[in-house]
Amino acid sequence: MTLSPEISILMDASGKVVSEAQLSAIRNLHPSDIAEALEKSDRTPAQIVEILVQIGNHISSKAFAQLSIETQEACLSAANAQTMLRFVENMEPDDRVDLLKAVDTEVREAIMPLIAQAERNDIRRLWQYAEGTAGAVMTTEYAVLPQHVTVAEALEQMRLQAPNKETIYTIHITDTQRHLLGILSLRDLIMSKPQMTLDRIMETRVISVPSDMPEEEAANVIAKYDLLALPVVDSENRLLGIITVDDVIDILEAENTEDFQRISAVIPFEEGYFKRSLPRLFWNRFLWLAVLLFTSLVSTTIMEMNSDVLHQMVALAFFIPMVTGTCGNAGTQSATMMVRALALGEVQPSDFLRVFRRELFMGLALGLALGLMAYFRVFLQDRHILLSGTVGVALLATLLAANLTGALMPLILKKIGLDPALTAGPFIATIIDAVGITLYFQIAILLIHVL
Amino acid sequence: MTLSPEISILMDASGKVVSEAQLSAIRNLHPSDIAEALEKSDRTPAQIVEILVQIGNHISSKAFAQLSIETQEACLSAANAQTMLRFVENMEPDDRVDLLKAVDTEVREAIMPLIAQAERNDIRRLWQYAEGTAGAVMTTEYAVLPQHVTVAEALEQMRLQAPNKETIYTIHITDTQRHLLGILSLRDLIMSKPQMTLDRIMETRVISVPSDMPEEEAANVIAKYDLLALPVVDSENRLLGIITVDDVIDILEAENTEDFQRISAVIPFEEGYFKRSLPRLFWNRFLWLAVLLFTSLVSTTIMEMNSDVLHQMVALAFFIPMVTGTCGNAGTQSATMMVRALALGEVQPSDFLRVFRRELFMGLALGLALGLMAYFRVFLQDRHILLSGTVGVALLATLLAANLTGALMPLILKKIGLDPALTAGPFIATIIDAVGITLYFQIAILLIHVL
Repeated sequence: MTLSPEISILMDASGKVVSEAQLSAIRNLHPSDIAEALEKSDRTPAQIVEILVQIGNHISSKAFAQLSIETQEACLSAANAQTMLRFVENMEPDDRVDLLKAVDTEVREAIMPLIAQAERNDIRRLWQYAEGTAGAVMTTEYAVLPQHVTVAEALEQMRLQAPNKETIYTIHITDTQRHLLGILSLRDLIMSKPQMTLDRIMETRVISVPSDMPEEEAANVIAKYDLLALPVVDSENRLLGIITVDDVIDILEAENTEDFQRISAVIPFEEGYFKRSLPRLFWNRFLWLAVLLFTSLVSTTIMEMNSDVLHQMVALAFFIPMVTGTCGNAGTQSATMMVRALALGEVQPSDFLRVFRRELFMGLALGLALGLMAYFRVFLQDRHILLSGTVGVALLATLLAANLTGALMPLILKKIGLDPALTAGPFIATIIDAVGITLYFQIAILLIHVL
Repeated sequence: MTLSPEISILMDASGKVVSEAQLSAIRNLHPSDIAEALEKSDRTPAQIVEILVQIGNHISSKAFAQLSIETQEACLSAANAQTMLRFVENMEPDDRVDLLKAVDTEVREAIMPLIAQAERNDIRRLWQYAEGTAGAVMTTEYAVLPQHVTVAEALEQMRLQAPNKETIYTIHITDTQRHLLGILSLRDLIMSKPQMTLDRIMETRVISVPSDMPEEEAANVIAKYDLLALPVVDSENRLLGIITVDDVIDILEAENTEDFQRISAVIPFEEGYFKRSLPRLFWNRFLWLAVLLFTSLVSTTIMEMNSDVLHQMVALAFFIPMVTGTCGNAGTQSATMMVRALALGEVQPSDFLRVFRRELFMGLALGLALGLMAYFRVFLQDRHILLSGTVGVALLATLLAANLTGALMPLILKKIGLDPALTAGPFIATIIDAVGITLYFQIAILLIHVL
């Protein structure tokens, strides 16, 4: 897709958006496109706010809501509270609380008194839910009706509620204490006879989640049952809010990003690649690299301990990268597959024995095939039974160990409550280096004695 | 969550579901739960069909639609066409075509003549779209209205269309040649005055995609604009179908799984971990491991070429795993981050120079920090300037190269139309092994001459 001229105006860093004609062209853009263009431009936060104010009307509020939380935070800190009030008030309740939690205390204290009383109470209510839980991503702007109204009255009510609700396609039926009695889709409402009361047509077997459920589990519930909205309830089944399907995509993508980062031994961070400052990114990467560097010294120590054998036969060293590399790759394969299968719920920690059997066979098959290939490759070149035998047998043994470690470690981590993604990638590779080199020398020594 | 007794009945392999009481308990379950229990049970495909037939009514059709395509395929091949007709007819059009494409020709030819004429035409229409395109995931069961009807008439029409449409929350307004003129949400319809005509209230700036757009790009459009449904049109803007938000989650998860597989050098496959047969999984893994094994022999050759230096100073070999391992890890970090940033659209191939600058600094910073750590570690133990100098400088040089390769390779692959995920993980690690060992010996030889 090429950028439209209106978007390039937004990306041009030359200060004000000038003509009225240009402004009205920008107002014709989708708020998501305006937000994207502003994100990618070199505008300062103060300039972004100025442009949004010039755009005016409700489009600018929608565009502000679509900005990344880092940019929203910078805007809120750069402009005065009175200017920002409209943008903050029009945000979705859950995003608004995230933003207010992110900004400095003085910025928050400047804007809070300006916010309307009802909204302020809503912020306080949502404030209590820990980040990453269903409570923290739910919205409180849900459609709700009592059970004894008729279908005709309900339709009229929905007409009135629609402007202020995030969705009216799922209607929640509660009693006066907000206990969730049932749900009803707008589709079913429309298809029902006007004089029926809601308690006769509502679905009473409601799928709901507690507010402290991790957000990714709640997202998986929505994905599994193809819901448009999922009610969040307290321990007494009182309706607290709903999670909508568009939040699910964001939650799942964030979760996947975290898995990718963990797999590649980067301390997870939430900003986009260009948004994260270099010094911060340095620490996200350096800490794990340093830990892994010291872990890899185990391999050095093992080689130092075996320096006699190595002096006897320097050629042994030539094939170490092949053995450790190939086995590291096999371990990465099985670990990554298992991390993914756990994330998608295809495999549970209780499947331990089943996975063990499968990966035992797989490790043997891969080890035999690759070990034979390595044996012939070394033998054909060096005609050296001891060397080729050591390489072949070491590859088989190490690959079997690597494959089982890679497959079972994620299950064990999940079982004890850690993120399985921690085990894949560099971690597996570094551990397998040490295991592989140990086995390699043990097998060499053994074969020297035998042959 | 613990399994309810009804679900354990489904998982019990003892043949028929017996009592009527148990059957009605099962009918009270959500179709997704029935499907999940059947998937996890040890039932044969023929037994699964028998249970679904006994459950009867529309719940069993919904449960069948929620089964994995592999299980659906096995059921369709195991039971007679007449029995399966109801299940196949009730599937969503896009899923049905996928299934009919997956089964053997004779199975397909047995059931096709039984399917109603209109449905059969629909199947033929959808058949033409290549797998992985917007056309192949769209449904043809969308809500549609002409532009001159009034809001009151439209509501009445929606009441009638609702039972047969996948969603009525987005209404498509077309002319008699199916040209897409505008869209209207049911929410806006409900909020409008009954006597207004649709052409006055519809949104004419419609976001739509062509049928040959890759499915993940279409999914990203839905995610970006928070849509419930996305129209798919032909080159003349005629409406062909819609992609709904619940498909998006499946598309994005499948795409992420493929990225995880590519990153860990597994040839992508679509079934879940336990669903993929061992011999097939063997090939998915073996082929890449064999390629990488031969690639890693480059490292062996380089060491053989440098065997003089290695004979002179065997201790050089001890630190090879540390240098190649650490640099492989750094390369994996930057490659995985870039693959993810490309998938989320945060970075484009045109950002090449910006990424280059960033990762040049990052590589230098990480290389200096880790190189110094390695230098002191080696020097404190061996008091050997040449050895510690070689290790430190080699680590700096290799890490810089590894970091840039890891970050830029995905951009280059994306530019020439390949999947960037191919570069991360084992590939990077294996290439960096060879580069690292080459630099290591060159630096050692250089320092031997200088010192």
